[in-house]
Amino acid sequence: MTWVPGATGGGYDLNHLPYGVVVGSDGQARCAVRIGDFAFDLGAAEAAGLILAGDSLRAPNLDAFLALGPAHWSAVRARLTELLGDPAHRAEVEPLLLPLATVANVLAWTVADYVDFYSSENHASNVGQIFRPGQAALLPNWKHLPIGYHGRAGTVVVSGTPVVRPSGQRAAGDFGPCRRLDIEAEVGFVVGVGSTLGEPVPWQRFADHVFGVVLVNDWSARDIQAWEYQPLGPFLGKSFATSVSAWITPLAAFGEQAWTAAPVQDPPVLPYLDDDRRALDLAITVEWNETTVASPPFRTMYWTPAQQLAHLTVNGANLRTGDLFASGTVSGPERDQVGSFLELTWGGKEPVLVKGEERAFLADGDTVVLRARVADIELGVVAGTVFPAQI
Amino acid sequence: MTWVPGATGGGYDLNHLPYGVVVGSDGQARCAVRIGDFAFDLGAAEAAGLILAGDSLRAPNLDAFLALGPAHWSAVRARLTELLGDPAHRAEVEPLLLPLATVANVLAWTVADYVDFYSSENHASNVGQIFRPGQAALLPNWKHLPIGYHGRAGTVVVSGTPVVRPSGQRAAGDFGPCRRLDIEAEVGFVVGVGSTLGEPVPWQRFADHVFGVVLVNDWSARDIQAWEYQPLGPFLGKSFATSVSAWITPLAAFGEQAWTAAPVQDPPVLPYLDDDRRALDLAITVEWNETTVASPPFRTMYWTPAQQLAHLTVNGANLRTGDLFASGTVSGPERDQVGSFLELTWGGKEPVLVKGEERAFLADGDTVVLRARVADIELGVVAGTVFPAQI
Repeated sequence: MTWVPGATGGGYDLNHLPYGVVVGSDGQARCAVRIGDFAFDLGAAEAAGLILAGDSLRAPNLDAFLALGPAHWSAVRARLTELLGDPAHRAEVEPLLLPLATVANVLAWTVADYVDFYSSENHASNVGQIFRPGQAALLPNWKHLPIGYHGRAGTVVVSGTPVVRPSGQRAAGDFGPCRRLDIEAEVGFVVGVGSTLGEPVPWQRFADHVFGVVLVNDWSARDIQAWEYQPLGPFLGKSFATSVSAWITPLAAFGEQAWTAAPVQDPPVLPYLDDDRRALDLAITVEWNETTVASPPFRTMYWTPAQQLAHLTVNGANLRTGDLFASGTVSGPERDQVGSFLELTWGGKEPVLVKGEERAFLADGDTVVLRARVADIELGVVAGTVFPAQI
Repeated sequence: MTWVPGATGGGYDLNHLPYGVVVGSDGQARCAVRIGDFAFDLGAAEAAGLILAGDSLRAPNLDAFLALGPAHWSAVRARLTELLGDPAHRAEVEPLLLPLATVANVLAWTVADYVDFYSSENHASNVGQIFRPGQAALLPNWKHLPIGYHGRAGTVVVSGTPVVRPSGQRAAGDFGPCRRLDIEAEVGFVVGVGSTLGEPVPWQRFADHVFGVVLVNDWSARDIQAWEYQPLGPFLGKSFATSVSAWITPLAAFGEQAWTAAPVQDPPVLPYLDDDRRALDLAITVEWNETTVASPPFRTMYWTPAQQLAHLTVNGANLRTGDLFASGTVSGPERDQVGSFLELTWGGKEPVLVKGEERAFLADGDTVVLRARVADIELGVVAGTVFPAQI
């Protein structure tokens, strides 16, 4: 129970405490946790001696705090619970609560490497049917390893950043603004503690390295992607913007009721991927111009984040503080559970009604908001509005 | 003409002056330029007031210097030419020359995003024939855009770093050490000045953003890559190590005689890719256990680095200080001009003799050294030795 006004019973109650970075009217970036509709200024709190985190929270981003590791994350979380839970601290803490309406969020950490997986069986199968009709929906490797690739870390942007429609090659000799601009609703995992080059990180070590969770919208230019992606994968069709939520929910915020069983895997996987099948039971919603068009269930993902971590490092690749790996588009078995408009409109052939207008892909001015909730934890939203192409 | 002993007439003469970071017996990392067989300690030089670069050279890496931009790069280069060229400066400079034998090189800058292209027509055509015999050697998109993808920035390592043989999935249910470990001889371009999200960088602006050139060995696990790469491209088959030379040759070091004409492109390219066809005439050599096995000519690349830069940003993706983009494997038309062992041994079917042993791919203990030279400029070498798999 928190003494912070208005916070009790919402998605940002005392058991949540997600981390972000806010900028106020003075233009200074400050580490913060969200409680209700306030950002608790952690930089000021550490400067005042209310919290001890090796001065990591006095930095303009969360990088140093992420690197501290689980023991420090726990200690700071316990202290925050005291400060925001015990009314005895109200007098010293309340002046450091910044109303969210008075601050802007910026990207909370420096993204080191960004890896995007492709771990929803329903999504991969839908895409296979749309692009390779009449053939096997899944490629032969799909059930043996979590397919993934590297994305562009430098174009990961915070929720709310305008998404400028990219231009590019849509076919041979055909250059212009993307005509099939799409979303991908995903869940991302932020690495705090790095690892050593040459040493794989087993799935059991997930919580020793991963700090927390963000929502991700991996904006996709389907026409550019379709023309460019053979044989080395997506490039410019994805690299113009990847939006992440402003607030990182620490793993520690998810109680037992947030977890459920992941799908059974058949055929059996190799030993390094043989995990405990725990799935985070996030219910995602996709809002297109304020119309909820889909509700992807994260529990249906075939490959778990723990398996993704193990796979990502099994060749000896090291982790670094700030690495982000995302789940891939989250799609459930039903048409209204898909995480992309490519699937929702079946390759654009079956438009949907959005506020009375028929839509297949994104129009300039459209806004997409992704939300996700499990138990009483509400992940930070990911919102983005499409701006017209510049060239 | 430099007064530095032994430097005149070698590949690291006064007209070269490549930048790196060295660590001496005190364990401190220092920015340096190479002249002959010495590293000139730029940190100490700036501290002593011999050079002015906004204290950027007193940092433990080149990041801040890279961000300064062309005017500052030129000014520092002019000053270095004075200091190392005019014997009047010998007394104050000579104490800051560290013999290379007394220092170790570390990675000279923080790699932001790493993009790997696929821009040699001979390489793409060879790979096509090896993997898709009987079909068109080039895919339909290849001559319309420089194919590229994002690699793992966090596993870019400096020349000399051991390359541990990766383990991974070689086929369904088949896990173990890579059996087809290969090299890719490439040329990399290091971005100094970033750009703005949403604003493409035209090819004409190449020298406003790119600071210099490194040699690259993009180590590749062909069996892992072959199993994983559909449909999103290479991932673990490439992400275990990418070696770069310790010394970055600034673009300013390449005189007119270093440039030649790039291949004529047919069909014509789109306007944003229609460049001036200038090619850096680097002659690369590939040494496998001290045997020169191939000599790839960089001038044969179909897509130039200026075109790669324009393509990379045409969708609005921004550049950041430290971005690295590499050419892709450099292969000329002849079998002894190829930049990978996959091509040299035609998919492993035609082994070569290396010191009397038949070899198709890399064995543990093998060392590969890449060199490149144009006119009297010798790029920093890229060397790596293969260590046994850990799992």
